Amino acid sequence: MSETSTPIDTIIIGAGSAGLSALREVRKRTDSFLIINDGPWGTTCARVGCMPSKLLIEAANAFDRSKTFDTFGIRGAQQLSVDLPAVLTRVRALRNGFVSGTIEDSDAGPDHQISGRARLLGPNQVTVNGKEYSASRIIIATGTRPRFDPAWHAMGNRVLTTDTLFEQTTLSPRMAVLGLGAVGVEMAQALARLGIEVTAFVSRKSVAGLSDPDVLNTLWGELEKDFHIHVGERASLAAHKDGVEVISGDKRLVVDQVLAASGRVPNVEGLGLETLGVALDEHGLPPFDGNTRQIADLPVFLVGDIDPSRALLHEASDEGHIAGMNAFADKPRHYRRRTVLGISFCQPNAAVVGQSFKELAGQDIVIGHIDFSRQGRARVAQEDAGLLRVYVDRASGKLLGSEMCAPAGEHLAHLLALAINNELTVQQMLNMPIYHPVLEEGLRTALRRAAGQLAHKSPTDLALCDLDKNSVLE
Amino acid sequence: MSETSTPIDTIIIGAGSAGLSALREVRKRTDSFLIINDGPWGTTCARVGCMPSKLLIEAANAFDRSKTFDTFGIRGAQQLSVDLPAVLTRVRALRNGFVSGTIEDSDAGPDHQISGRARLLGPNQVTVNGKEYSASRIIIATGTRPRFDPAWHAMGNRVLTTDTLFEQTTLSPRMAVLGLGAVGVEMAQALARLGIEVTAFVSRKSVAGLSDPDVLNTLWGELEKDFHIHVGERASLAAHKDGVEVISGDKRLVVDQVLAASGRVPNVEGLGLETLGVALDEHGLPPFDGNTRQIADLPVFLVGDIDPSRALLHEASDEGHIAGMNAFADKPRHYRRRTVLGISFCQPNAAVVGQSFKELAGQDIVIGHIDFSRQGRARVAQEDAGLLRVYVDRASGKLLGSEMCAPAGEHLAHLLALAINNELTVQQMLNMPIYHPVLEEGLRTALRRAAGQLAHKSPTDLALCDLDKNSVLE
Repeated sequence: MSETSTPIDTIIIGAGSAGLSALREVRKRTDSFLIINDGPWGTTCARVGCMPSKLLIEAANAFDRSKTFDTFGIRGAQQLSVDLPAVLTRVRALRNGFVSGTIEDSDAGPDHQISGRARLLGPNQVTVNGKEYSASRIIIATGTRPRFDPAWHAMGNRVLTTDTLFEQTTLSPRMAVLGLGAVGVEMAQALARLGIEVTAFVSRKSVAGLSDPDVLNTLWGELEKDFHIHVGERASLAAHKDGVEVISGDKRLVVDQVLAASGRVPNVEGLGLETLGVALDEHGLPPFDGNTRQIADLPVFLVGDIDPSRALLHEASDEGHIAGMNAFADKPRHYRRRTVLGISFCQPNAAVVGQSFKELAGQDIVIGHIDFSRQGRARVAQEDAGLLRVYVDRASGKLLGSEMCAPAGEHLAHLLALAINNELTVQQMLNMPIYHPVLEEGLRTALRRAAGQLAHKSPTDLALCDLDKNSVLE
Repeated sequence: MSETSTPIDTIIIGAGSAGLSALREVRKRTDSFLIINDGPWGTTCARVGCMPSKLLIEAANAFDRSKTFDTFGIRGAQQLSVDLPAVLTRVRALRNGFVSGTIEDSDAGPDHQISGRARLLGPNQVTVNGKEYSASRIIIATGTRPRFDPAWHAMGNRVLTTDTLFEQTTLSPRMAVLGLGAVGVEMAQALARLGIEVTAFVSRKSVAGLSDPDVLNTLWGELEKDFHIHVGERASLAAHKDGVEVISGDKRLVVDQVLAASGRVPNVEGLGLETLGVALDEHGLPPFDGNTRQIADLPVFLVGDIDPSRALLHEASDEGHIAGMNAFADKPRHYRRRTVLGISFCQPNAAVVGQSFKELAGQDIVIGHIDFSRQGRARVAQEDAGLLRVYVDRASGKLLGSEMCAPAGEHLAHLLALAINNELTVQQMLNMPIYHPVLEEGLRTALRRAAGQLAHKSPTDLALCDLDKNSVLE
């Protein structure tokens, strides 16, 4: 028998980044709210995602940088060694600080927080820990979990995911990484750069969501300097006396540990979405509006990675924010989603900004590129590898998108994202100041190459003053 | 007696970055041109400026990074040492490559190039090596040289400038640096990070052109972790049995070598500018239009660092480009100069973008800031130092300028420069996607803090879709 308590204004299911973002808006509008979380508090991002992965990457890249020391004139780098337990201890120490921060964000007091697995009983009803709650509004933000074959549990910590990787006190000398998505490629490279012999298994030549074959090939070549990549049938795992055997077609490789990074699964099971009275799609998700986050015309909103279309922290945060505002609006508003920006922090950084090469297939675009192996500043810094391509609408000159693997690509991607988000033309970008010597000069080369193919070419990057603005440049 | 040759269409005096930029435009328009250069060919930037300094900085920062190794869990960093001769050999090797590139740019064949010191004889007449040339157009791009007291010559390579620094086969253990402008601060920190005991002498608390006292103080504190700074009377130098004595008021310090980095002097002497028939200013410069580069109404143009108002490579390059176009225009056109962008590649990077704090004094602005000592990604990377401030027009919300010392400041500065150059508002910037975890999130914090003080506040960073664009956000 379940007990029913007094009605609550708003219930948020899930205290991850999306749920917490929603909570911030909800708390501005009501004191009657409840946030329910299953499993550990603290967001995926802070606990097992963005933050610990970046901590591992920074350590790995610091050590990798030492390989350039002799070239720079710094001696003794061959004496350096990686203390894996110490690396992992620092990862956890800083990670725990970030987790504490997110837990503080969700700390609304005992009357407002419940640990447990919530289940919908309808558009205004939730049950958790055997108790029922009615709510005027519900925001669903249950997130995802790593894809994991239940059979792998038998192999214990031989088979890791990002949920368990950062909890290890040390790591083994031979590891396999399954998958080279944004997370897989980051971890494969970081582990390799920390001295682990890494072999990645993928079912097709694809890395970090890149769709431009030239960019993909350039990154692929760079990654193969750090670790082995096997492209073949979907890998299966078998226990082996010396560790784990990874099997992909004819390829069999025994490693000590495996990091399974072949995607994440939305947490929809047992959530009771079927009680909402709307049809669910093949992924078990109800119909919802991506710009309002509302499910059908119900007082129920869906936010964060449970919707896999934009499974990135900044998007999850936007979605929670939108839902938190719309849950209280007379009529939910349609918010414009931001320009797409995806970054993987491998080296060189992989990024997709705006429309991808694949999405632009068949459109009348011009493409400009820069090969960073010959770019001045990249050579100065011994970071001379990478390719960036920009996609520009031939008729209007508007920048539509870019794919890259580039030194400081994370920063170049933001510069392009600002331009695309404001619908700037290549000419407007070329009018900005570019210092010297910087990597942005490489981007300028790419932009100029695109500009040279436009229907309307300008003889100069500069604009005219008001004094001369009616003159025609020729 | 001087010999007069056939008239030439265009003469360019100076084969530095500005002269070469002009040359590119001139060659598109005439085959009758001459480029005259005094001293070594190859630009200041490539020979003794941007490129060798950045090469030294990259080596210094690579070594400095090793001080974080223990924190990251990398052992053995105490075994590392700097091989200064090897560092300088690499600097020269790559530098020579960059110089070759600029010499190729100026290689117009023997009939078009003269090595020698040119002197104007009037608006259409130049003499060099005892020979006179008449020209329809003249472009003056003679650049600058380091400020150097002739008395210092007696101390040989005890007193260096950037002209001689990179030619040294090694450097001494104790050095003084005079001046902390963009070059002084870069070199003082780089030398210190390479293990040299550096003391900088400045006559006032000023670094890299920063005018915002909060930013300046933050950078000052960081620099003092790397080297000593003495603020006092303008330093004088005296030969000493153990090296050079640097004297500033009561302060006397004996060092092995001094880097004199207290500014550069325009090369105007003996150039014959007085023969142009126009009044010269107190710096010996004729009146010219900064947007056309034309001197008075003469067929003579002035470009590059000889005009100290924008003595930066990208500005010199623009000026040469403008002059090269305008020298052939029926009526010189006024080109809009780019948003100001100054960067010094010390760590954290110092930068001024758009209008400086000082320039905005008295205007109705709001200021947003971010302290990078607490910023997530900066902490992850062990680069947690710096302060960035943005200046925003209170009424319009337009971003007017920024000063910073920040990790990856060079990249944040470009992002702000694009925004300012396109007259974007803070709200338009906040509407862009910002990935996680990145340093740009710190910039977003600064922008949000500014936005919160605006006359018209928005409840969200997001924009509405067309569907809802007539709604009012509240």
